[in-house]
Amino acid sequence: MESSRSGTAGRPIKCKAAICRKAGQPLSIEEIEVDPPKAWEVRIKILCTSLCHSDLSSWKLDVEPFAIFPRIFGHEAIGVVESVGENVHEVKEGDTVLPVFHPNCGDCPDCKSSKGNGCSVFVKRPGLVHNMPRDWTSRFRGSDGQVIYHFLKVSSFSEYTVVDIANIVKIDGLFPVDRACLLSCGVCTGVGAAWKVAGVEEGSTVAIFGLGSVGLAVAEGARLRGASKIIGVDLNPEKFELGKKFGVTDFINPSGCRDRPLSEVIKEMTDGGADYCFECIGVASVMADAFASSREGYGKTIILGVEMAGTPLSLNSVELLSGKTVSGCIFGGLKPKIDIPVLAQKYLEKELNLDDFITHHLSFQEINKAFELLLQGKSLRCIMWMDE
Amino acid sequence: MESSRSGTAGRPIKCKAAICRKAGQPLSIEEIEVDPPKAWEVRIKILCTSLCHSDLSSWKLDVEPFAIFPRIFGHEAIGVVESVGENVHEVKEGDTVLPVFHPNCGDCPDCKSSKGNGCSVFVKRPGLVHNMPRDWTSRFRGSDGQVIYHFLKVSSFSEYTVVDIANIVKIDGLFPVDRACLLSCGVCTGVGAAWKVAGVEEGSTVAIFGLGSVGLAVAEGARLRGASKIIGVDLNPEKFELGKKFGVTDFINPSGCRDRPLSEVIKEMTDGGADYCFECIGVASVMADAFASSREGYGKTIILGVEMAGTPLSLNSVELLSGKTVSGCIFGGLKPKIDIPVLAQKYLEKELNLDDFITHHLSFQEINKAFELLLQGKSLRCIMWMDE
Repeated sequence: MESSRSGTAGRPIKCKAAICRKAGQPLSIEEIEVDPPKAWEVRIKILCTSLCHSDLSSWKLDVEPFAIFPRIFGHEAIGVVESVGENVHEVKEGDTVLPVFHPNCGDCPDCKSSKGNGCSVFVKRPGLVHNMPRDWTSRFRGSDGQVIYHFLKVSSFSEYTVVDIANIVKIDGLFPVDRACLLSCGVCTGVGAAWKVAGVEEGSTVAIFGLGSVGLAVAEGARLRGASKIIGVDLNPEKFELGKKFGVTDFINPSGCRDRPLSEVIKEMTDGGADYCFECIGVASVMADAFASSREGYGKTIILGVEMAGTPLSLNSVELLSGKTVSGCIFGGLKPKIDIPVLAQKYLEKELNLDDFITHHLSFQEINKAFELLLQGKSLRCIMWMDE
Repeated sequence: MESSRSGTAGRPIKCKAAICRKAGQPLSIEEIEVDPPKAWEVRIKILCTSLCHSDLSSWKLDVEPFAIFPRIFGHEAIGVVESVGENVHEVKEGDTVLPVFHPNCGDCPDCKSSKGNGCSVFVKRPGLVHNMPRDWTSRFRGSDGQVIYHFLKVSSFSEYTVVDIANIVKIDGLFPVDRACLLSCGVCTGVGAAWKVAGVEEGSTVAIFGLGSVGLAVAEGARLRGASKIIGVDLNPEKFELGKKFGVTDFINPSGCRDRPLSEVIKEMTDGGADYCFECIGVASVMADAFASSREGYGKTIILGVEMAGTPLSLNSVELLSGKTVSGCIFGGLKPKIDIPVLAQKYLEKELNLDDFITHHLSFQEINKAFELLLQGKSLRCIMWMDE
């Protein structure tokens, strides 16, 4: 066992966490016990965390086996290493780190491959998403001793959390903490999809379906690559002004299309269809719209949204024959340990706009307000500070 | 008007053609008149033609607006230029050429793009597939003066045909005629899909659904790229021996899988799924099987089959998120004028196996026998010679 300046290493830590006890119910700030990290694990003191739409979708979800409570949500965060378990050499106590839901062990054939961003070290198991990835158990207990479940291997709505080393990315401690926090999920997902999955290039046309943080991060990625037209599609008309900050050049509110199919409007605006269409909502019919809006011959449709209703994506395969492509990605097709530092550098060089994603700052105690703001479409990223 | 050694230039030519007067009925060899080529058109004396599965599917199809008769099928052929219309400078009388259903004008933005193999010079119009592409009229008349329709801009089941210059590829007159004929459709479709659309690389795993000529050409393309495992899937057990000639290393007859899903069998054989899955039949459920058999993280599914029943392809979009891709192509994603000469060269260098695709030689008079052989799964490519 490693030593710890704080003297807490090797022992459970009592701290505050925001517990969800039932789908869709306000979280309650409670005292919990966080076990010390086991082998290949890291215990982190969270500095700040933000609320991502995936937290919201999972929090709402009242369907087994996904709905499992009590649980600690949160997966976009930054923290400082409090202690590490055996076999952890990559980070040490005091290091600033991002916990990232998408694993990147660095050693498996997938991590070593130049293709995709999978990590095959963790075998899929039903308990995986609500427990630690190696031994499928929890590190959290309530004050009554009851097990509290993890979320997406991060669970950052807690003053302390335990994360597998495959889900940890070290970051320069001098990097602005709240900006770095954004790189642990949403911004990487969008920018990565534009850069790595689509390969948006100078002069190309882009259509983005859904201008939440992920969709706007796609726009930001496309802007940096020099796309000539970036069409944002959203039911919320306020998103256009916001979108301009990330390079959105044109805006469509589908409710204003009346009888014309959305794809027809986009084809007209792009002389035959957008080179790259991104679905950032998770609705099968919108995915089909995106596909229909993509250019014949070589239009690419990239699915980022997680379809949680189980509706299949229905495509006319004859349309594929012209050369269209449909693909999807998680974490923007990026390998966290390799690519997050690249994006961080782009921010330091004042190329990548992270600042405008942060619309609100709250104290961790106000976490339910963050949920309300996101539900009402009033926030992009709301940073919740642990120390306040 | 160009002059012609044969003295036929500028005048209609009377010749024999195999006419289809009703869906699924035997063709009848009849005398027709073939008009001289208009501007940008070439009249060709066919040397030999072969029967492709798309001829068969379209011949069977009894649904408006596709079923239009009388019609001259055939789109895989080789011929000699008899005369050319105005503005044709690329070929001249006496040149050996392949008529190719897929256009490649060479001048439009799509043809000049490095992406895809579309050609945007011809606007889509309902009459396009059964008439000439520029003026949407026919060059064929029956002995009673009735208009006879074209097929796929080639109509090679005729001693003479007229083809747009965008659908003509010049080929060395010394190249073996029957081998060259194969390059005008099926072999390019399969090899191109493996090389250009999928980008099969050394050591990768491949699964091919449907071992007709196109599927076997995919295998041949994958073999030349050094794929380590090429799984052929076909209901006809005789296809395995045949497949070995084109690099097929493993064979699955889906009817022998019993209760196990085909995708499960393929995943087991490939340690998690094939890197590249090719659907070469045109059945939506097989496309879904191919997608399910492709490797998580970066498996690519390439659709080559034309789904003529109108059944949509239904995909679980969450599976796409791992990084899977679905795409399709026509003519293997190749640009005919640029890429056919490359494949021809590979044959001359004794790399590309064209010989084994030719299973039968018949005289053009025996064309209905060629239909029977293909219907019964007894032939790959049957060469029909005009002069015999």
